[in-house]
Amino acid sequence: MEKFVLKGDICYSTDTRTLQTAEAAYLVCVDGKSAGVFETLPEQYQDLPLIDCSGQLIMPGLVDLHVHAPQFAFRSLGMDLELIDWLNTHTFPEESKYADMAYAFSAYLAFVGDIQRGPNTRSVIFATRHVPATVLLMDLLEESGLSCMVGKVNMDRHAPEPLVETSAAQSLADTRTWLSEVAGRYSRVSPILTPRFIPSCTDELMAGLGEIHREFGLPVQSHLSENKSEIDWVGALRPEAESYGHAYYRNGLFGGDVPTVMAHCVWPTAEEFALIKQQQIRVAHCPQSNINLSSGIAPIRRYLDAGVPVGLGSDVAGGANTSIFRAMSDAIGVSKLYWRLIDQDAAPLTLEEAFYLGTLGGGRFFGEVGSFAPGFEFDALVIDDRSIPGRRDLEIADRLARVVYLSDERHIVRKFVQGAAVALGT
Amino acid sequence: MEKFVLKGDICYSTDTRTLQTAEAAYLVCVDGKSAGVFETLPEQYQDLPLIDCSGQLIMPGLVDLHVHAPQFAFRSLGMDLELIDWLNTHTFPEESKYADMAYAFSAYLAFVGDIQRGPNTRSVIFATRHVPATVLLMDLLEESGLSCMVGKVNMDRHAPEPLVETSAAQSLADTRTWLSEVAGRYSRVSPILTPRFIPSCTDELMAGLGEIHREFGLPVQSHLSENKSEIDWVGALRPEAESYGHAYYRNGLFGGDVPTVMAHCVWPTAEEFALIKQQQIRVAHCPQSNINLSSGIAPIRRYLDAGVPVGLGSDVAGGANTSIFRAMSDAIGVSKLYWRLIDQDAAPLTLEEAFYLGTLGGGRFFGEVGSFAPGFEFDALVIDDRSIPGRRDLEIADRLARVVYLSDERHIVRKFVQGAAVALGT
Repeated sequence: MEKFVLKGDICYSTDTRTLQTAEAAYLVCVDGKSAGVFETLPEQYQDLPLIDCSGQLIMPGLVDLHVHAPQFAFRSLGMDLELIDWLNTHTFPEESKYADMAYAFSAYLAFVGDIQRGPNTRSVIFATRHVPATVLLMDLLEESGLSCMVGKVNMDRHAPEPLVETSAAQSLADTRTWLSEVAGRYSRVSPILTPRFIPSCTDELMAGLGEIHREFGLPVQSHLSENKSEIDWVGALRPEAESYGHAYYRNGLFGGDVPTVMAHCVWPTAEEFALIKQQQIRVAHCPQSNINLSSGIAPIRRYLDAGVPVGLGSDVAGGANTSIFRAMSDAIGVSKLYWRLIDQDAAPLTLEEAFYLGTLGGGRFFGEVGSFAPGFEFDALVIDDRSIPGRRDLEIADRLARVVYLSDERHIVRKFVQGAAVALGT
Repeated sequence: MEKFVLKGDICYSTDTRTLQTAEAAYLVCVDGKSAGVFETLPEQYQDLPLIDCSGQLIMPGLVDLHVHAPQFAFRSLGMDLELIDWLNTHTFPEESKYADMAYAFSAYLAFVGDIQRGPNTRSVIFATRHVPATVLLMDLLEESGLSCMVGKVNMDRHAPEPLVETSAAQSLADTRTWLSEVAGRYSRVSPILTPRFIPSCTDELMAGLGEIHREFGLPVQSHLSENKSEIDWVGALRPEAESYGHAYYRNGLFGGDVPTVMAHCVWPTAEEFALIKQQQIRVAHCPQSNINLSSGIAPIRRYLDAGVPVGLGSDVAGGANTSIFRAMSDAIGVSKLYWRLIDQDAAPLTLEEAFYLGTLGGGRFFGEVGSFAPGFEFDALVIDDRSIPGRRDLEIADRLARVVYLSDERHIVRKFVQGAAVALGT
């Protein structure tokens, strides 16, 4: 169905603070894009098929800016550990299994099925360092109807055999193999360069990835200033860099002309904060993970005030839940603790702001995604909030709050990506 | 069924740090109490009916030490407000509706149904100040098969008409009416004295409740040192009291011979902490509420180290979720932030400790409740964790972690209170 109309109670963000709402209104899809939201259906759309979602909420699909697909299988385990110990005890052994394609198939199928059923329509994903399993994941995602960026991970040091790549040259060669295998293969899935993080990547590898970036023009994802022990380690590994962020910057993989998403950004130094702002790094705020791995609370109000672009990430399996609704309520929650415990000048995030972060804030990394303004790609959720027990005499903004805090995948009745319906599964 | 056996993978706490586990083991119920957990079924129980829950987890029912039944209907609303503004904007207007028995019936029915379907078997509940609606709530709870303590709320100042009680005398007379109506009426539900909090209660009312306590020997629940603005207000209202806790203490309603649960206890002064310890106040730790209302993080490690009894509370609607599994993961989470941001000598709570808090830690307020040691009341959950996607090659402790972070009511397949099956509803 290329052209159609949804009728229902609509909400979407147009900027960080503004939630647009319209009751019993019309959202028009033409050729996979929004043609706008209308109180009265314009003449030229009156012959389009109309899907009546009266009484239900219609909102943009949610965007997960940071998630590790191979970590889905061990969500909630090892939560008594901090980042580096958790990586060595749980993450690296689990990721090693993705050399086995049978294992990868069943584990990635479970991951993709979970995302399909949930509210996220877009994800920026870490796979593992294995090329065949990464291509498999991209195949499964393409079939699911979701739109994703996926990275084959680069990591040529400080990880156990057999997960660590044997050399920078091998890692770079595998990356080129992967890129040639996926070139032109998908309509909704695309590759993203994925150096794991500075401790996992030699200078030679980073320099080679910089070359690949210049050749292919790909975006970049990585981790930045998540956990204090990790930051100390980066300082020891890269003593010449003014900050953790500068270590990426020196390799030409940190914003500016390179669309870059950096997960966490919990503990920026003043120099790093200035560089993040200058390079317009997109911060993937992962509040649940930052709690679970005892990392801390990212200064999101400061980033927003400085005009740094911010979105939300589940960071499975640092986070246990894939839903970006959960990331929204967690983002609000930790911002309140940040205000209460650290800085009373940093106002807590409002519901409208958290909703922005989980839709348009992350969606901008994909282009015109995460809103219903005309021309935006038609990613939409239809949510039947009437089965959430409690008050029913509510404005759309309050209904949205109930959905953010209380809904689960059972409340999602329709889901669209670029105008195409996504099967919600069973 | 008075005597029966459950077979499955069993876990339960015996103290704050120790999780007992037994695979493919037997839990025996005799006359509503646990007769113990056995690797091999003893001769004398071999003729009892056996419920085969092989492959499923069996654990004690969860205990919610602090929940407001009339606030269930507006969960997730007003989360941009701090405590006092939230009370005035949302809570008090909503609670006023419980003068209307038709409203109370439908709203309390939704609350009780939610608890029935979820993992909690015991709750310590605030109703409203209305006697008929409070009796109705107790009737519905008794019918549900759950075991609960319920309080008609006392509040004779600083609340809007028509919610505020017109005088201490009226509040006390209503309390006596309520107690006579419920006397001998229930097998699993019992009354608890419930002065709302110091700002809502005149000295005369508190003194009268002290008398009622001495006459009826009832336990007491209230709120303590939750939010900074509230604490300042108490200081202004009761300048003679050395602390907020001392204001209760001076009225004879603060532990010692009076079994007392106090919700929150986020900001104890040194004097108050010492009094809590001396009087063995049971702290109802409500981490999600303390986040949502920007209250802060309670120093749970300090309470545990000092031997103060602690349990968990959902504090709906300060908290949005009724499940004490959520309170467990939130308790672990905020304890990590407390360690990271406030006090690196306060070790984060482990999964075992959080599980203890949500079972035996709260259960002790009811007596021999919250464990499977012989003689404990037979409150049990049977959880089929096999449908949670992810790793299956796990020890019971890791399976419990997955249940705490990832399960919902769909995974609960059986639920017992005092040996009787609770209908899980639809």
